[in-house]
Amino acid sequence: MAQPNAQHPGRHRVVVVGGGFGGLQAVKALRHAPVDITLIDRRNFHLFQPLVYQVATGALSPGEIAAPLRWIFRRQEDVSVLLADVTGFDLEAHEVVTAPVVDDTGPQRVPYDTLIVAGGSAYSYFGHDEWRDVAPEVKSLESALDVRRRILEAFEAAELEEDPARRAAWLTFVVVGAGPTGVEMAGQISELARDTLPRDFRVADPRQGRVLLVEQADRVLTAFPPKLSKRAERALERIGVTPMLRHLVTGVDEEGVTIEDEDGGETSRVPARTVIWAAGVQASGLAAALAEPTGAELDRTGRMTVNADLSLPGHPEVLALGDMVRVAGPDGAPITYPGVAPVAMQQGRYAARVVADRLRGRRSPPFHYLDKGNLATIGRAKAVADVRGLRLSGLLAWITWLAVHIFYLVGFQNRMLVVIRWAISFVTRGRGARLITHRDDRPL
Amino acid sequence: MAQPNAQHPGRHRVVVVGGGFGGLQAVKALRHAPVDITLIDRRNFHLFQPLVYQVATGALSPGEIAAPLRWIFRRQEDVSVLLADVTGFDLEAHEVVTAPVVDDTGPQRVPYDTLIVAGGSAYSYFGHDEWRDVAPEVKSLESALDVRRRILEAFEAAELEEDPARRAAWLTFVVVGAGPTGVEMAGQISELARDTLPRDFRVADPRQGRVLLVEQADRVLTAFPPKLSKRAERALERIGVTPMLRHLVTGVDEEGVTIEDEDGGETSRVPARTVIWAAGVQASGLAAALAEPTGAELDRTGRMTVNADLSLPGHPEVLALGDMVRVAGPDGAPITYPGVAPVAMQQGRYAARVVADRLRGRRSPPFHYLDKGNLATIGRAKAVADVRGLRLSGLLAWITWLAVHIFYLVGFQNRMLVVIRWAISFVTRGRGARLITHRDDRPL
Repeated sequence: MAQPNAQHPGRHRVVVVGGGFGGLQAVKALRHAPVDITLIDRRNFHLFQPLVYQVATGALSPGEIAAPLRWIFRRQEDVSVLLADVTGFDLEAHEVVTAPVVDDTGPQRVPYDTLIVAGGSAYSYFGHDEWRDVAPEVKSLESALDVRRRILEAFEAAELEEDPARRAAWLTFVVVGAGPTGVEMAGQISELARDTLPRDFRVADPRQGRVLLVEQADRVLTAFPPKLSKRAERALERIGVTPMLRHLVTGVDEEGVTIEDEDGGETSRVPARTVIWAAGVQASGLAAALAEPTGAELDRTGRMTVNADLSLPGHPEVLALGDMVRVAGPDGAPITYPGVAPVAMQQGRYAARVVADRLRGRRSPPFHYLDKGNLATIGRAKAVADVRGLRLSGLLAWITWLAVHIFYLVGFQNRMLVVIRWAISFVTRGRGARLITHRDDRPL
Repeated sequence: MAQPNAQHPGRHRVVVVGGGFGGLQAVKALRHAPVDITLIDRRNFHLFQPLVYQVATGALSPGEIAAPLRWIFRRQEDVSVLLADVTGFDLEAHEVVTAPVVDDTGPQRVPYDTLIVAGGSAYSYFGHDEWRDVAPEVKSLESALDVRRRILEAFEAAELEEDPARRAAWLTFVVVGAGPTGVEMAGQISELARDTLPRDFRVADPRQGRVLLVEQADRVLTAFPPKLSKRAERALERIGVTPMLRHLVTGVDEEGVTIEDEDGGETSRVPARTVIWAAGVQASGLAAALAEPTGAELDRTGRMTVNADLSLPGHPEVLALGDMVRVAGPDGAPITYPGVAPVAMQQGRYAARVVADRLRGRRSPPFHYLDKGNLATIGRAKAVADVRGLRLSGLLAWITWLAVHIFYLVGFQNRMLVVIRWAISFVTRGRGARLITHRDDRPL
């Protein structure tokens, strides 16, 4: 294989695995360090994950929340981007083992002096991976497009269905998990059904659509103070979402879901043709790949524990970060930070600092997370915000949410397009990207 | 099946098959006629086909050149949109036979009083349909996304390939057919390689990419006057495209193409990993489905001949239009109009007029095509235009092209977004939608 970063022989080589929020910040923050960097990802783009749900509901196009990694680093000339699947690590040889994603030319090895792994996480299906095909998650761009197709097709099918029970099943949407993504998805589907689509159909009335938000905990948005959860629940109810708290999904198939009421212990069956998954969390398999040779333990969500400077126990040259790790606290007990972008970004910048410090022979202070607060949007002009004890809801929280997301959207072009799209959608209540694109394309 | 247009029992029912330029105009022009309209398409969106090549090269996002059909007709309340595959016609019973595309509930029949069929065309593969998998066409949105993925992946693979010959094959792009789409594709790939990507890669130089434009005729853009073809050829050469005129593709596989020089009769083999098809034309199979029961003949591209008022011989209640038909001329000999959007649009509006005239007991004059001219763009600020004898090239032609395309883009929102995207791309030479999205999405 051509070594992408052969520019400076003898220079310190940093390999960063993962082009999400953590990896991106690590590479950016190494801008002025005397290192050659290889960024490995199996996608050629960075995804602005907090807005993926807007692609899943047709409000934004994929290109508006994704930016090519090569484009982001086109002017950072010490950075090479490698499009490849990471299949393992050879910690003794200091090499990352990869498989190409385009041309199948066999496994390859990328040598490193320092390795930074930011593999992220996915939703867990409570051990039922077979539900994934029926209830796609809103996480990757591809799965978001799959969700978009399913939601739009459900309204199409309802329009053609004469049987009232079957039509109701097409117009019932079950969102599993009431974290920020689940709440946002439920709110958006409800607004789609109530505001955007009613004029589009002639027989079935999209306003008859039901959106159920199933959550095992006793409130939505558990990362927020209980008072804001209550406000979010009321806001959801006002726009037509039915929160089902203390309910557990025990079965999913093409015809619907089985839900258990944790209070009464009763099990009920909900006929629903569209189920969307946003529950549980499962750390990237890269955590296990790092932990296995070192004998480190994984917690039940697959996170491995790293030292206070994010280094792998026994391997100071390997750093790991983001929601695939827990970090050893001052007393040695591991801290589980929330799986949100700010944690990954701060850890990415911190990892870059550790690398730079070491090259200068300095020791870094342990990682410290600065919690700037929590934001979640519920619908048009509705959100909740918990900013350092300041608790906002309604329009003001929504404006905060808007400003923060626009500020962090990568790249000038995307930011401007998203602002315009949102402005138009806000006024017209329309959604421009309501396209059903098929996987199986047939000629005429 | 629920009959989508059961609103006005006893009213004249018009069924329009195909939501392309022809079908869209037919439905729009029937706005004031006392008819119930069902528009059938197997996609839920209208595609602005002349800009599909910009999606294929990452300049525009799918949502920017497509608009949901239901959204377009949301205020035209006599219009029902039916998402279905048309599988045949029962001309005796006056019914269209359809298959659902979402829920497989078996074949359905949609009755009509007047039927308007606008099925369009696809590229033909010179009888080699097996080439389609290796050399996708730039026609549907899905195939354009496939082309985009292949082009971007080719540059990725070149970056990783050490063998110079294999790298050269990854950087060789063959576009088959030098009509407007072929010329536009070739120009855009060359600009992508020369202007957009060079800073993105570290090992392989995208500027070494070769773009071959293979055309059987002795000039590009045969619909234009020879002088403009010459200018277009020179403009293509200046931006790095190699037109191969009087050359015929006789073989396509994953490793390259076999090309026959029609002058010398010599056959050569070009190693190329990316082949894009924009040659030949094959009318929609709906032409054959209409012709078969009536015994009408099809020409070699599968077009059927309709009367001067676009009606099917022997079936005045059936109209067909666009590039799936030839139209009987004054002397009875069929006229083959160019397969461009203006022909389909004028015929769509004409078909609506025929329906309205008949309801008033009037006869319509035969269809007459008003040729407003021909436009093709070659690259950044380069185009050719032939507007009623006025022959333009260069910047002026490009501005004309820009104005016409922006004017005809469906819907305010798309228009504004496209203008902004283009303005940014023009200044930065960037392409925002350079995303490789995979068909096989795997979890982490």
